[in-house]
Amino acid sequence: MQRYFIDEVLQINETYTDLNIDTHHIFNVMRMSVGDKFEIVDKEKYVFIALIENKAPFTLKIIEQLKTSQSNVEVTVFTPFLKGDKLDFMLQKCTELGASRFIFYNGQRSIVKLDDKKKEKRKTRYEKIVKEASEQSKRIEIPPIIFENNLKQIDFKLYDAVYIAYENLSGNVSKKFIDQLHIDNQKIAIIFGPEGGLTEDEVNSHKEFTTVQLGSRILRAETAPLYMLSIIDSFYN
Amino acid sequence: MQRYFIDEVLQINETYTDLNIDTHHIFNVMRMSVGDKFEIVDKEKYVFIALIENKAPFTLKIIEQLKTSQSNVEVTVFTPFLKGDKLDFMLQKCTELGASRFIFYNGQRSIVKLDDKKKEKRKTRYEKIVKEASEQSKRIEIPPIIFENNLKQIDFKLYDAVYIAYENLSGNVSKKFIDQLHIDNQKIAIIFGPEGGLTEDEVNSHKEFTTVQLGSRILRAETAPLYMLSIIDSFYN
Repeated sequence: MQRYFIDEVLQINETYTDLNIDTHHIFNVMRMSVGDKFEIVDKEKYVFIALIENKAPFTLKIIEQLKTSQSNVEVTVFTPFLKGDKLDFMLQKCTELGASRFIFYNGQRSIVKLDDKKKEKRKTRYEKIVKEASEQSKRIEIPPIIFENNLKQIDFKLYDAVYIAYENLSGNVSKKFIDQLHIDNQKIAIIFGPEGGLTEDEVNSHKEFTTVQLGSRILRAETAPLYMLSIIDSFYN
Repeated sequence: MQRYFIDEVLQINETYTDLNIDTHHIFNVMRMSVGDKFEIVDKEKYVFIALIENKAPFTLKIIEQLKTSQSNVEVTVFTPFLKGDKLDFMLQKCTELGASRFIFYNGQRSIVKLDDKKKEKRKTRYEKIVKEASEQSKRIEIPPIIFENNLKQIDFKLYDAVYIAYENLSGNVSKKFIDQLHIDNQKIAIIFGPEGGLTEDEVNSHKEFTTVQLGSRILRAETAPLYMLSIIDSFYN
């Protein structure tokens, strides 16, 4: 059943008219009509089944509340801007794979530099991608997109564990990722570098960082978060 | 260092002229010149460092042999044709994540149907994608692309374990994927359905199949193999 998100609080057995919901998608893309049902997630992350009672004005009745279970682990993905449309894909897949939040930072070796206007446009596009991926993968919340400045300025004390994907740690052998996970750590941050990699300065900028090695091959920047999220999901759930 | 594949046997300290290698990529994309080095994987999967001695005729000297380690586990990905360019992305990412071989089959609910001419074109494109992804991720072999008919006709006795990603197994709860892996199973097959899912007929067509559940969310067809390959890599390596 198709799922939609709404920024209001809903109640069982109530009827609502002209809610702010994507009726174009409901009627033109999904080709639903009066009498059809869909899932709806309200502002407080409760999931309901809604019945379409009228097309114009758009009227629906909340007829059932669904049970939901949510993972306790919360994963924040720190990502630089990347070239081309790699980030579109990365955001979509990471949303399916359970990312809780995306924080963009300017990497010291980032090739992509964006001015404020471009950033604003990107934010709108990224928010659309993660919303659609959340609906598709039946999540109960949409991961927020946050733009920060650089890694050094971020407060990592908020997290129980911070994993940084870094291949060429001079003098040190990075540890296998799965062996570094602990069930007690519920607030996790994972950090990836840009195409040119992270600098030593960035890697050494916070004592909270655990550098980890991701498998036996070299992964592209946009593949690394998919690998880590898959393993986190499998470990915690 | 850039890596290229070549379909010949090479030897250390030998000099070669006009090998069948992508010189356009070497000189125009990577902008290398005489005196530069790159990695080269020969027909027998040995990895060498080659030094460019001359541009035309293109001459290189094999100056060093690199040690290689390879995973013992061999993963064959069974995939239907999917809509749009999802497969391009899926093949690239699965190659990075260690897939050994791709076998395409016609799913009973497949939306995409291809005639022989279109199949031939797809094969050429897919082979280019996996070759480039193999070079980029420094693999020592390029996963072959194989087209088969349908799932029923495939002999799954060749594999130690066959995992089938199937969400709605009526009456049965699918098992968590990682719990189904065994270190002794070295030849693994993973099977994904098309956008419309696998039919019960397909799921029940071979007694070798173990149906598994992939994490706590609903994954798109092209995301499921990334999830499984990440977990396999982490489990075996």
